[in-house]
Amino acid sequence: MTISYLCTLPLPDHWFDELARRVPGIEIVRAETGAEVPAETLGRIELLHTGDWFPEPAAVPALRGVQLDTSGVDHVRGTPLWASGVPIATLGGIAPVPMAEYATMAILELAHRMPRIERHRAERSWPSNAERLATLTPRQLAGATVGIVGYGRIGREISRLAEVLGMRVLGVSRSGARRQGGEKFDTGRRAAADDPAELFPIGRLDEVLAQSDFLVVVVPLTEETRGLIGERELALLPEGAYVVNIARGGIVDETALLAGLRAGRIAGVALDVFDEEPLGPDSLWWSEPGALITPHVAGLAPQYHAQTLDLVVENVTRLAERRPLVNEVDRAAGY
Amino acid sequence: MTISYLCTLPLPDHWFDELARRVPGIEIVRAETGAEVPAETLGRIELLHTGDWFPEPAAVPALRGVQLDTSGVDHVRGTPLWASGVPIATLGGIAPVPMAEYATMAILELAHRMPRIERHRAERSWPSNAERLATLTPRQLAGATVGIVGYGRIGREISRLAEVLGMRVLGVSRSGARRQGGEKFDTGRRAAADDPAELFPIGRLDEVLAQSDFLVVVVPLTEETRGLIGERELALLPEGAYVVNIARGGIVDETALLAGLRAGRIAGVALDVFDEEPLGPDSLWWSEPGALITPHVAGLAPQYHAQTLDLVVENVTRLAERRPLVNEVDRAAGY
Repeated sequence: MTISYLCTLPLPDHWFDELARRVPGIEIVRAETGAEVPAETLGRIELLHTGDWFPEPAAVPALRGVQLDTSGVDHVRGTPLWASGVPIATLGGIAPVPMAEYATMAILELAHRMPRIERHRAERSWPSNAERLATLTPRQLAGATVGIVGYGRIGREISRLAEVLGMRVLGVSRSGARRQGGEKFDTGRRAAADDPAELFPIGRLDEVLAQSDFLVVVVPLTEETRGLIGERELALLPEGAYVVNIARGGIVDETALLAGLRAGRIAGVALDVFDEEPLGPDSLWWSEPGALITPHVAGLAPQYHAQTLDLVVENVTRLAERRPLVNEVDRAAGY
Repeated sequence: MTISYLCTLPLPDHWFDELARRVPGIEIVRAETGAEVPAETLGRIELLHTGDWFPEPAAVPALRGVQLDTSGVDHVRGTPLWASGVPIATLGGIAPVPMAEYATMAILELAHRMPRIERHRAERSWPSNAERLATLTPRQLAGATVGIVGYGRIGREISRLAEVLGMRVLGVSRSGARRQGGEKFDTGRRAAADDPAELFPIGRLDEVLAQSDFLVVVVPLTEETRGLIGERELALLPEGAYVVNIARGGIVDETALLAGLRAGRIAGVALDVFDEEPLGPDSLWWSEPGALITPHVAGLAPQYHAQTLDLVVENVTRLAERRPLVNEVDRAAGY
């Protein structure tokens, strides 16, 4: 195979050695950004593997594919590369297992009153028996409903774990259908066939919100999903609901969420993503007692290297054989 | 049925109404402690339902059974009631679901680097991309081994959840057999028949320790288990193992555990129980960065009232029919 491949990611040497072994004949060009690559070399690159360096299409005339290092494409949407016709593939499908573990951890922490327990710890105060019974007895998960807004590979994996906790799962996707778009890479373990989740199209979001004791937001950020969960939507949740956002800032209205939390209508939140990242040192979230917060870590995957390699090998092979990329972005849908 | 029943627990009125409805003819005596009950009344009590009030056997000559409000009996062992022959039943079997949820939450929090993330939060610092990748990528749970020391109803329920995370489960019980002792109350969902855990007798504890990436301690505190997990045992764990104690203080050597944690040999701990409870304000654990700590809450059960009622109805019925109690303590085994 004689694909010319440029990678701007700081992957370890052994990763590239393994790529060369698995795709004999591949030309591998490594650079921190493509800007340091001679124009002549750049001119023959067919597959660009990148996180946040997006060249002018004119600089990469041979380019036939882009492999992103992210599942989301919100940072690519405004670039000339996006405006061009070059197929773009996401990193989707690497994160279902760690993302679902994170969502399940957040559900367990919220149900088991960890925000309140953390306050006891901060004050070095051990609650009395009566106080523990009254305020720290967990919310029962068996029989509770989790609504998953953005029901794809990650949602399916969350449903696999939630099911074992005895939860009912409602999923919301654009069409309400179980599978959408082109071929997808997937390291999750739930097959669509054995998924007991009830699926709803986005037009029926309100019905799902009204039943969600736990709301997990994992939808891609697009022009359609920006502000999707606003004050009105949060008010539809059952009294005492919990909200988990592992998608992107900009989807859930942070001001309305904080107000609902402080009013006690929302019992707790877990946020891995924020309107502004990095979260500034004066953000209210750092010290908000009802909030579990983490610095955009939910998608970090223990098998990132091995799985990314599988994905790149697959897409290099497809490019060589002139087949469509796996995980190709649907530019009309915006993700 | 004409059983005379004394309850010293602050249960709500509706609980007793429901008991009277389900066991017609039962005589219900309520008191904060039995000390305030007239001697004549006390003299005819056949079933005592209590948390920590244990009368002299001579004061309760008609007593034929004790229903405890705890799963553990370590606080009963030194009493004259224990020395008497009156059957004692524990609250065992109420807690498997919440305890297993707690253990799973602890495993997820440790694997997902929550102690380190909590430190970032305390410092209001958002780690860089490189720092996140290098220090906050989760430990992979799929394929990791969890060793459960004390493998009964709670252990089985932990294995049900751990299995879904792809973990291998090793269980340690006294005999290494799947079921021991008399009839047990059980609100967990894993039947022994579909349990894939590998079981070991306590004499092979070392083998289990040597393989346990995660060690969960959930054994009753008895004279045999006091100090069971000491410095030598902790040293047998794989480098970078995690330890979760939801049993009782006194089983895991806290000093050795803290030393292992600070030396980095143990990667993290989650403790719900301590040598001294309440934990004093000057305890080192409050501020230990590698430790998740909670104030003995793992056994708090959302369905405590309904499940306790089921258990008491069962044992009142058994007493009336002169059958052995469910959950009866084996005094020789000590639990």
